[in-house]
Amino acid sequence: MSKPHEPPRHLLTLQDLGRERILTLLDRAAGLRAQFRAGALPPLLAGRTVVNLFFEPSTRTRTSFELAARRLGALVVNFDIASSSTSKGETLEDTLATLEAMDADAFVVRHKENGTPARLAAHARRAAVLNAGDGNHAHPTQGLLDLLTIRDRKGRVDGLTVTICGDVRHSRVARSDVHGLAALGAGEIRLCGPAALLPAADEFQHCRVFEDFDAAVEGADVIVMLRLQKERMERLAFDEDTYFARYGLDAKRLTRARPDAVVMHPGPMNRGVEIASEVADGAQSAVLEQVANGVFARMAVLEALLRR
Amino acid sequence: MSKPHEPPRHLLTLQDLGRERILTLLDRAAGLRAQFRAGALPPLLAGRTVVNLFFEPSTRTRTSFELAARRLGALVVNFDIASSSTSKGETLEDTLATLEAMDADAFVVRHKENGTPARLAAHARRAAVLNAGDGNHAHPTQGLLDLLTIRDRKGRVDGLTVTICGDVRHSRVARSDVHGLAALGAGEIRLCGPAALLPAADEFQHCRVFEDFDAAVEGADVIVMLRLQKERMERLAFDEDTYFARYGLDAKRLTRARPDAVVMHPGPMNRGVEIASEVADGAQSAVLEQVANGVFARMAVLEALLRR
Amino acid sequence: MSKPHEPPRHLLTLQDLGRERILTLLDRAAGLRAQFRAGALPPLLAGRTVVNLFFEPSTRTRTSFELAARRLGALVVNFDIASSSTSKGETLEDTLATLEAMDADAFVVRHKENGTPARLAAHARRAAVLNAGDGNHAHPTQGLLDLLTIRDRKGRVDGLTVTICGDVRHSRVARSDVHGLAALGAGEIRLCGPAALLPAADEFQHCRVFEDFDAAVEGADVIVMLRLQKERMERLAFDEDTYFARYGLDAKRLTRARPDAVVMHPGPMNRGVEIASEVADGAQSAVLEQVANGVFARMAVLEALLRR
Repeated sequence: MSKPHEPPRHLLTLQDLGRERILTLLDRAAGLRAQFRAGALPPLLAGRTVVNLFFEPSTRTRTSFELAARRLGALVVNFDIASSSTSKGETLEDTLATLEAMDADAFVVRHKENGTPARLAAHARRAAVLNAGDGNHAHPTQGLLDLLTIRDRKGRVDGLTVTICGDVRHSRVARSDVHGLAALGAGEIRLCGPAALLPAADEFQHCRVFEDFDAAVEGADVIVMLRLQKERMERLAFDEDTYFARYGLDAKRLTRARPDAVVMHPGPMNRGVEIASEVADGAQSAVLEQVANGVFARMAVLEALLRR
Repeated sequence: MSKPHEPPRHLLTLQDLGRERILTLLDRAAGLRAQFRAGALPPLLAGRTVVNLFFEPSTRTRTSFELAARRLGALVVNFDIASSSTSKGETLEDTLATLEAMDADAFVVRHKENGTPARLAAHARRAAVLNAGDGNHAHPTQGLLDLLTIRDRKGRVDGLTVTICGDVRHSRVARSDVHGLAALGAGEIRLCGPAALLPAADEFQHCRVFEDFDAAVEGADVIVMLRLQKERMERLAFDEDTYFARYGLDAKRLTRARPDAVVMHPGPMNRGVEIASEVADGAQSAVLEQVANGVFARMAVLEALLRR
Repeated sequence: MSKPHEPPRHLLTLQDLGRERILTLLDRAAGLRAQFRAGALPPLLAGRTVVNLFFEPSTRTRTSFELAARRLGALVVNFDIASSSTSKGETLEDTLATLEAMDADAFVVRHKENGTPARLAAHARRAAVLNAGDGNHAHPTQGLLDLLTIRDRKGRVDGLTVTICGDVRHSRVARSDVHGLAALGAGEIRLCGPAALLPAADEFQHCRVFEDFDAAVEGADVIVMLRLQKERMERLAFDEDTYFARYGLDAKRLTRARPDAVVMHPGPMNRGVEIASEVADGAQSAVLEQVANGVFARMAVLEALLRR
């Protein structure tokens, strides 16, 4: 999806995808949502085969892609890596070529290493590759569903102040959000977290970086809270309670943002670590709308890449 | 499914479901069976999504629910608990809310703890919860399929003498059978097993309790044999051979029952432990009819709860 | 599929299936392929249920069968042996009877022991059993897909010289290939490998046996390379490099065959052990065509056994 004048074949990142393509996908996702809710979703992908290749377990994202594809009439195969030939010494490229020879039309790939989806895309002869999250590199459908959710709640993305807080350094969600927000003209993107979890200074030149979460929340239209993985916690010099006190979002801190600020989280949430239940379940939380939109954003991408 | 004047939203137990609702489900199961066998089952649940949430492995019951839902045109997702966010510390309620946000219409829940399906039902905003077995509390679709099988074989349930033998104390099957049999007016319900495996004296006040299996079989119309789990065996003061001699059903003991008595077992059977092969495979055994009816009973429940 | 005047109910082996039945299946596989590629595959198996019973993990073959069945409209259940009643002490026959009682129409069985599919076929009341590989006995759909691939490339099977190289002794693929090639009148079938991996002298009386791979390749029309399992390697008196030098197929050795010789491999390939990448990816390689044909050969078999 990177060359401007060619129909895109893969979705690997939102970076360089461009404002127009992103807006087209968001509009289409909203359209498919309306059709689904009216019970009138056509089987646009009937006859097509989608293979889920999840090298990292993720029932949530896999289920979302699976429902998106199957509700559009596609046949979905969840490829079980653990019992596959890949585990018998076959190269990943040979596994892909084998599945493609069985007329798979798309691969939804999640992998802990940056660049695996791109590597498979380079090897695919005909099939589309959809990145469902690679390392800390990109998670483009999460970026799209976040943009759709922001647009639903705020009516626009342009000019908004968006704060992303947590383990930004290791977060593919943060990266795809930043790419998408920048493409759609967000006013100010703020990244916040303890120094050890902030990205390198030169990576996000158009973002403002904060270590003080109170300051980062001030006047924000949107606050995206990231999941703090337990493994990261152990490397910090302070404990969970201190993390929550400094970087957790509770109702009191939320009052620093705009009164109509939206709170988002990619899930799964660590209640009491990065977000208080009063906020997670409160009226400003769009967490479940994000989940719902995930299915429709993935439908829009699958349709764009697969429809004949 | 408990309030008399409201359409029920969940199926958690047969207790208090009421004679009329149970009979309606049995009639509908038999009707769907006739349609299926005529190759004329309509896709009554097209567009609906059913999620299997099995916290205890049970391929048999899961497959039965899956076939019931898919043959009616529903989309079924088998949620893999082991690789899910629940295993990453997400609360079960958040996992349910997430799947419900993806427009899941029903959850089929099996759990080793009593009450987990009810807990999830209380939390669900819109979706139906079907109890597929919780602890030793209830297994309502097993109760329904057993009633359907009895009615098929005997023409009625009213007035029948039904003996349930084995580990009654820990059996959700026994409990749901008793609830269903009582609702449909069985004449006498007999519970039989070694003292250590019998329920507390006050739990089943309308049942007769036996430690002597010969006496419990005498004149019975229906005999339901329960599976003896190996773990229970170890806690008894006697070995498998003694168990079979006292509580196993063989052809000789079966002659004490009525000549047209039906033998049932929820499966999987331990041949030679609680049931002899000559009985399991004999003309009076309805074991495979139970399995077949399981799919249709589950179809009837899914349709009742999910059809728009 | 063994009695000449009766419609076959199972597919257990190609041995004794007969030339006519094999040719009919190959023609039908090619026909279904043409319909699929034209986007005009009818749902010939709508309303039928296929159960995958894989006691050995094999994502490749299981996925091929699954796609074959589902693209024809069948409902496919992947039965998870590990969490099934079979693992709770239920006999395999009872598991089969249970699934058959749920109206399963076909079982696709893979098992490490020779004869398990035949044993289940003898027990099945109504359902078809398809052997997806048992021990070193047979893998009939692999034989069919190999014949189809040879016919595609060479226009015929009759009279061809076919060399099969590797661990012939333990290979069900080799056996089913030999059965199929003999039935279709191949000119000469050559089996090649180190002495420890060759079959007993009396097993393949109509084949020529070689220990010298150069001689076995000489003038061949088709070369089928078998996967060398790591466990076997350990039992040989030489290492992987020596194996490759003696029994690996590289571009130089391939020049000994006819210029238009076809190279095949059932996969997954051990590149650099039994086959060089220059050959595996070269113009004479039909490896990916084999994979593609696998789905269509399985469709043809499923249709023959299941269509009402």
